[in-house]
Amino acid sequence: MGIVMGPNQYGKAEVRIVSVAKNTERHRIKDLNVSTSLRGDFEQTHLTGDNANVLPTDTQKNTVYAFAKHAPIGEIEDFALRLGHHFVDTQDPVRGARILIDEYAWDRIPVGGTGHDHSFHRTSEEKRTTAVTIDDGKAHVVSGLTDLVVLKSTGSEFWGYPKDEYTTLQETEDRVLATAVTARWRYLRDDLDFGKTFSAVRETLLEAFATTHSYALQQTLYEMGRKVLEEHGDVAEVRLSLPNKHHFTVDLSYCGLDNDNEVFFAADRPYGLIEGMVTRDDVEQAPNAWFSLPEF
Amino acid sequence: MGIVMGPNQYGKAEVRIVSVAKNTERHRIKDLNVSTSLRGDFEQTHLTGDNANVLPTDTQKNTVYAFAKHAPIGEIEDFALRLGHHFVDTQDPVRGARILIDEYAWDRIPVGGTGHDHSFHRTSEEKRTTAVTIDDGKAHVVSGLTDLVVLKSTGSEFWGYPKDEYTTLQETEDRVLATAVTARWRYLRDDLDFGKTFSAVRETLLEAFATTHSYALQQTLYEMGRKVLEEHGDVAEVRLSLPNKHHFTVDLSYCGLDNDNEVFFAADRPYGLIEGMVTRDDVEQAPNAWFSLPEF
Amino acid sequence: MGIVMGPNQYGKAEVRIVSVAKNTERHRIKDLNVSTSLRGDFEQTHLTGDNANVLPTDTQKNTVYAFAKHAPIGEIEDFALRLGHHFVDTQDPVRGARILIDEYAWDRIPVGGTGHDHSFHRTSEEKRTTAVTIDDGKAHVVSGLTDLVVLKSTGSEFWGYPKDEYTTLQETEDRVLATAVTARWRYLRDDLDFGKTFSAVRETLLEAFATTHSYALQQTLYEMGRKVLEEHGDVAEVRLSLPNKHHFTVDLSYCGLDNDNEVFFAADRPYGLIEGMVTRDDVEQAPNAWFSLPEF
Amino acid sequence: MGIVMGPNQYGKAEVRIVSVAKNTERHRIKDLNVSTSLRGDFEQTHLTGDNANVLPTDTQKNTVYAFAKHAPIGEIEDFALRLGHHFVDTQDPVRGARILIDEYAWDRIPVGGTGHDHSFHRTSEEKRTTAVTIDDGKAHVVSGLTDLVVLKSTGSEFWGYPKDEYTTLQETEDRVLATAVTARWRYLRDDLDFGKTFSAVRETLLEAFATTHSYALQQTLYEMGRKVLEEHGDVAEVRLSLPNKHHFTVDLSYCGLDNDNEVFFAADRPYGLIEGMVTRDDVEQAPNAWFSLPEF
Repeated sequence: MGIVMGPNQYGKAEVRIVSVAKNTERHRIKDLNVSTSLRGDFEQTHLTGDNANVLPTDTQKNTVYAFAKHAPIGEIEDFALRLGHHFVDTQDPVRGARILIDEYAWDRIPVGGTGHDHSFHRTSEEKRTTAVTIDDGKAHVVSGLTDLVVLKSTGSEFWGYPKDEYTTLQETEDRVLATAVTARWRYLRDDLDFGKTFSAVRETLLEAFATTHSYALQQTLYEMGRKVLEEHGDVAEVRLSLPNKHHFTVDLSYCGLDNDNEVFFAADRPYGLIEGMVTRDDVEQAPNAWFSLPEF
Repeated sequence: MGIVMGPNQYGKAEVRIVSVAKNTERHRIKDLNVSTSLRGDFEQTHLTGDNANVLPTDTQKNTVYAFAKHAPIGEIEDFALRLGHHFVDTQDPVRGARILIDEYAWDRIPVGGTGHDHSFHRTSEEKRTTAVTIDDGKAHVVSGLTDLVVLKSTGSEFWGYPKDEYTTLQETEDRVLATAVTARWRYLRDDLDFGKTFSAVRETLLEAFATTHSYALQQTLYEMGRKVLEEHGDVAEVRLSLPNKHHFTVDLSYCGLDNDNEVFFAADRPYGLIEGMVTRDDVEQAPNAWFSLPEF
Repeated sequence: MGIVMGPNQYGKAEVRIVSVAKNTERHRIKDLNVSTSLRGDFEQTHLTGDNANVLPTDTQKNTVYAFAKHAPIGEIEDFALRLGHHFVDTQDPVRGARILIDEYAWDRIPVGGTGHDHSFHRTSEEKRTTAVTIDDGKAHVVSGLTDLVVLKSTGSEFWGYPKDEYTTLQETEDRVLATAVTARWRYLRDDLDFGKTFSAVRETLLEAFATTHSYALQQTLYEMGRKVLEEHGDVAEVRLSLPNKHHFTVDLSYCGLDNDNEVFFAADRPYGLIEGMVTRDDVEQAPNAWFSLPEF
Repeated sequence: MGIVMGPNQYGKAEVRIVSVAKNTERHRIKDLNVSTSLRGDFEQTHLTGDNANVLPTDTQKNTVYAFAKHAPIGEIEDFALRLGHHFVDTQDPVRGARILIDEYAWDRIPVGGTGHDHSFHRTSEEKRTTAVTIDDGKAHVVSGLTDLVVLKSTGSEFWGYPKDEYTTLQETEDRVLATAVTARWRYLRDDLDFGKTFSAVRETLLEAFATTHSYALQQTLYEMGRKVLEEHGDVAEVRLSLPNKHHFTVDLSYCGLDNDNEVFFAADRPYGLIEGMVTRDDVEQAPNAWFSLPEF
């Protein structure tokens, strides 16, 4: 019997970088949170503390900042691909890399009806994300979004479920349905116009949520995934994690008032959690694209 | 010598309420976080645990929900005024009330170019706030906003400050200036069109931030307050708390790159914190309007 | 009519400093979060951006680090006093200073039954706090603690309160009482053994919570304050903010089970919020000691 | 080509439950956060919204509360096993279940030198965790802890790493090493004395961190995992996620002071992130035990 080191990775997490493109008076900003992880031949650092193969996480951080200056960052997928390839190509012991980037959105501050040249305000708490994995010479791009909070004030039902001795929930043909979408989708290629595709997929997700008359959050999840795959041929699969942010109809009968789904208590915890993958049945699975990402 | 009970208040904090106006197919939603505090003759509950004067916080919560059904919520200031007056008017021992409301903003999900009738997405992390105080028969309205994150990519300098033996900061004629605005302003009346006024004050704050060439965040703070008072006659004073969210220019000389204020490290902590009040010199101060609110 | 700058302050917030005392093999660590605010003659920076009076917040941060090396930090109150006096004494335009310090607690990791010489683990989420104000040549010390989470599984009742049309709460002679204590107390002197006094006051607060048979959280609050004042002659007043962290008895009748206050749902929001000051009637009030601290 | 539903699960997340054992005057409390996920034949709810197979998450929550009353909760692993088996055994369409439980620790409040009978204070922010998976009739138990914050003030070096054009980090033979441990370990059996084993594994982890002279956080990680496997025959593998919470030595040369690793800036972001598995080479892998848990 022996004890051995299994899979492992290391890197620098949450490198907060803001870059300003100043080639014209009308500045553009990119606001990113970058995390790098390297995989490869790191047995000695674990077993003996010999760091001959360990590119310091500090150097990884410096590399992120330098690469933002070498060339315009561009789309986060492209920036992550450049970083990932760099680490794998220049460091012998590094066999793979996984680059995570979250992007925060900013708008120009309107002044006299026009967006200002160099003054911005953060828009949503929603973040655009990517997870690029370089593995065995192959690049995988899994992009997504998180913290997209959505709500339907009607058009959602829930009934027909099994009852047992612990059931108290009443069936309903009208409820509020609210969730904070975390979605990740795997692209089949690494040379797309990622900005344009992201916007299109996001629009599909939002429209699917809005227009699906929902009998279960699971059904909404599937419709969101299905429509992305139908409309976006470059997407292989979609994984969704949808907390059911319960909005309970407040019982106002104590003071003689009806409440026809008008006044709700928005609860924090517990919450339902609906998770699933929607996929094409004719594409190869790519477990390496997802290694050490949340399953959903 | 004796030990005595000093000022005190109690209530229900963070009542999360979502209301849906369904009088037409085109639903409208209000998403609020309401906190109530009552002040008055509560000595006995403190000294002996006699609760004869203590309207339970649970009842306060129920009242919030019921009032959302009695009539449309309307503007948060109006809703807070109705709640505050109710507690003071109906409970003998209650001499004063302070109602805090935060409002979360939602937009309609665009579907085929139009906002959907009953599907919404949360917009910003920014929150609209109000703090209404009923005290000695008088109503005070202090409204504001929080978590409005703004950034100027140029148009900000910092130099001419005193140096001592602990000084290492370099003077600069070009830096990024970023902050998360918390602003509170006191209205001189309680019968305004609060929605319209809020939007106008918010626009003034944003424009002042954008258009002020800044030599110090203090100067920006003053300009923001000054312009609100100049343009909005119903506002008596403005209090601002502005964290200076440092964006440090990354020194890329280690790899032979210039960095002409293009690539920044966005730091978390520590941060500067600039706080101040801008006020008219011909209005009465109203300390009761601010009791147990943050000073800035 | 004119628009004027009112009260204001500025400084560096949340300077995270860890210091290690290495005079023996048995290291000791201090883990602090320090925030400095200066008050004084800062009108010009607000009105014109002239920074001649503005000691940069970066210099304030450097000063904190240097002072941690000049001499052992010692008790947080003493460190804050040294910092506050320094700023007031060395900077002409600075008339006052307010230094906030939070201290995180660490224990030695036990190895073979003994605490290790240089390996530590963070204990509680509870923090020891101080807020030292230098104002007009006088030093005020307000110390405290926050995030002290406590719970009584019995020994708490709530009944005898007024009922109105919005009342649904049932009276009870047995409930769980839980809160997260934030306490601040003002010392009458600035030359105490602050470490010893802190431990003693904390012990009094905990014992008072534990041993008070509670008819209202207000009564518990008063008892906690009263006992501190009774037992600690150097304390002038105590301010407490006590969220009532509701633990609702789960109704298990749906499956035929009794629940005699054994199984509880620990709710997040809303929560009761009970706030108050307990004070001596024969000491001078010190509003300057509390300026820009939370009222409770 | 077709679009299909892939792996999925659903359940109730973060059911906050506190239970009090009152069989003697000396109460005991359990404070848990329970999340349930069911897996199985849920295709119809996704494809058509037919919920005939969908035990509501509300019912899952009710079941958690009822089970806390059916019998004493006991160790979290045992409680999770009972819940998991219940869902799989009583619901035909349910083929698997995954129960996550976090446990918060409480101590008795000392009064007069003795722990009080029914008054408690929350101790650490550290949480004990378990993830029990019932899959294809087999039970997997993965237990662990999270938010265990530890620090070595010396006994840590970092040198001998590769340098490239982006390297600026200086080698060091003495640094502070700090991390917040998240550890998960898989047991080979489901009938252990889980409380006793947890305490023993935790002690091993702490001692390994304390006594390893560290040349890399990777080496510390391996030593922590290795010693757990050496000393605890019932553990098959250990997975560790160790953020390197950087403590940077502050350069005080600006004011003429040495800083021999005495005064540190504790940084928030970025941070190193070291992740890895340590495993026995003679036990069967159990991917199902880890499905939808973080890889590290």
